[in-house]
Amino acid sequence: MIYFNLIVILPLLNILYHLDLGTKTHNLPAMFGDVKFQQNEGFCAFIRKELGLEGSEEDMQDICTGTDRYCMYKTGPVLSINHGMGIPSISIMLHELIKLLYYAKCYDVTIIRIGTSGGIGIEPGSIVITDTAVDSFFKPQFEQIILDTVVTQNTELDKELAEELLKCSKEVPDFPTLIGHTMCTYDFYEGQGRLDGALCSFSNEKKLDYLQRAYKTGIRNIEMESSVFAAMCGLCGLKAAVVCVTLLNRLECDQINLPREVLLEYQQHPQKLISIFIKKRLGRYNPK
Amino acid sequence: MIYFNLIVILPLLNILYHLDLGTKTHNLPAMFGDVKFQQNEGFCAFIRKELGLEGSEEDMQDICTGTDRYCMYKTGPVLSINHGMGIPSISIMLHELIKLLYYAKCYDVTIIRIGTSGGIGIEPGSIVITDTAVDSFFKPQFEQIILDTVVTQNTELDKELAEELLKCSKEVPDFPTLIGHTMCTYDFYEGQGRLDGALCSFSNEKKLDYLQRAYKTGIRNIEMESSVFAAMCGLCGLKAAVVCVTLLNRLECDQINLPREVLLEYQQHPQKLISIFIKKRLGRYNPK
Repeated sequence: MIYFNLIVILPLLNILYHLDLGTKTHNLPAMFGDVKFQQNEGFCAFIRKELGLEGSEEDMQDICTGTDRYCMYKTGPVLSINHGMGIPSISIMLHELIKLLYYAKCYDVTIIRIGTSGGIGIEPGSIVITDTAVDSFFKPQFEQIILDTVVTQNTELDKELAEELLKCSKEVPDFPTLIGHTMCTYDFYEGQGRLDGALCSFSNEKKLDYLQRAYKTGIRNIEMESSVFAAMCGLCGLKAAVVCVTLLNRLECDQINLPREVLLEYQQHPQKLISIFIKKRLGRYNPK
Repeated sequence: MIYFNLIVILPLLNILYHLDLGTKTHNLPAMFGDVKFQQNEGFCAFIRKELGLEGSEEDMQDICTGTDRYCMYKTGPVLSINHGMGIPSISIMLHELIKLLYYAKCYDVTIIRIGTSGGIGIEPGSIVITDTAVDSFFKPQFEQIILDTVVTQNTELDKELAEELLKCSKEVPDFPTLIGHTMCTYDFYEGQGRLDGALCSFSNEKKLDYLQRAYKTGIRNIEMESSVFAAMCGLCGLKAAVVCVTLLNRLECDQINLPREVLLEYQQHPQKLISIFIKKRLGRYNPK
């Protein structure tokens, strides 16, 4: 059940500008009413095959045709959207997605962000399921600026969902999966302690000290979207998870210099895990 | 001349991960050495026609082929890249673009962000050339978190370049152009005082009070990238400008509900202005 507990009144007519959808121009309940799972990266082709869904080619057409900001695909009860990079980009998508789910009268939706991240002290290729997103100061919170006031929001994710995902990971023993804190930053370079950006104002020692302190607080990976995702889903009563693969160990290097085929293989780890999770939920899981 | 005044040492080998380019895999000086202008949105087809460049179809091929994060096009001395939405997304692109310009041995580069924005107290369709980017508290600064320290950076843009662009606008009298402050926010909905997001925790009165206070400090439009753009270009000695069209007057409404053809026409206003600017700089401007 979605509790839109902070939405007081949503008007009957509403334009979801960045998705190029609207209540006046599209029949949202007909288009989306059966959605039960929602992921944030191009995933539909994979899950369609995994679920053995014979749907028409229409399933694979981008729903947000009139914009290049986001792409959206729907296959059966799975909706898949990319969210761009960074807190502002995912927050725009989430506002409009949550409005879409509301107008489409969806209920009991599970929302999962899958993506890539930098690991801290763990083997590249590992999956981190986030229990709590923390900020650059290791605090479990998201600071949202509303008008000119800073409002602090909770960034804990759904514990049961995280445990359910960890349980699914036992079925894919070819890469390690763990639950840990995820640090969410506004910047990929200096903000994550990288020395290899166009600008750098600190030493390798300072960087390592920072990352080691992060590790000690329980942080196992760093990415750029989890805090606002956890905060907004929490406020709207959506069950949410963040499942990211790590592409490198930041205690060892800054540059992502894996061969393309290894990168592509790593990027499939979250998809493999989520596919088992969805199949189990739908009662279609047949272990080989 | 680019002064990479904060880059102490850039290694000989470097991977520009999000652009899918690298010093080892690409001959960057040959590919980019002649770049003099750089814009951040799909613009190359337009300027190619405007400059009468007869280049091959190759000119119109995306240079960042191996990634869907960014697209990059080059036509003559003009490089055009999209930057996604929000400060984190444009900052990743800028780090890698600045490294690219460095490795390609480009000099005397002018960098312009063109885009859309919400206007405050001005007619939709107007162009705002930013003199200074300000934050949600109307302060002319960008707060960059480096490791766990907040560093305050200057967000003034190049005055002469802004005046030169304003002068060019006299040649396109079909829409108003002005110089003003631009507010840069981390959020499109609550962070810009919108009432129509999935979440809203303030009244219409509070919203209007906030936007009117913004207007009184000289803010004429709101977008989501200008502050980090101004800060990074300033630190690297790049001459930079922000030229955004306004799609609505935020004192009157929140939703962008213009007909598609009007939206598309408005989005061409910055392109028209920049095209005159580039033609003048290249000595190819022939007023009709």
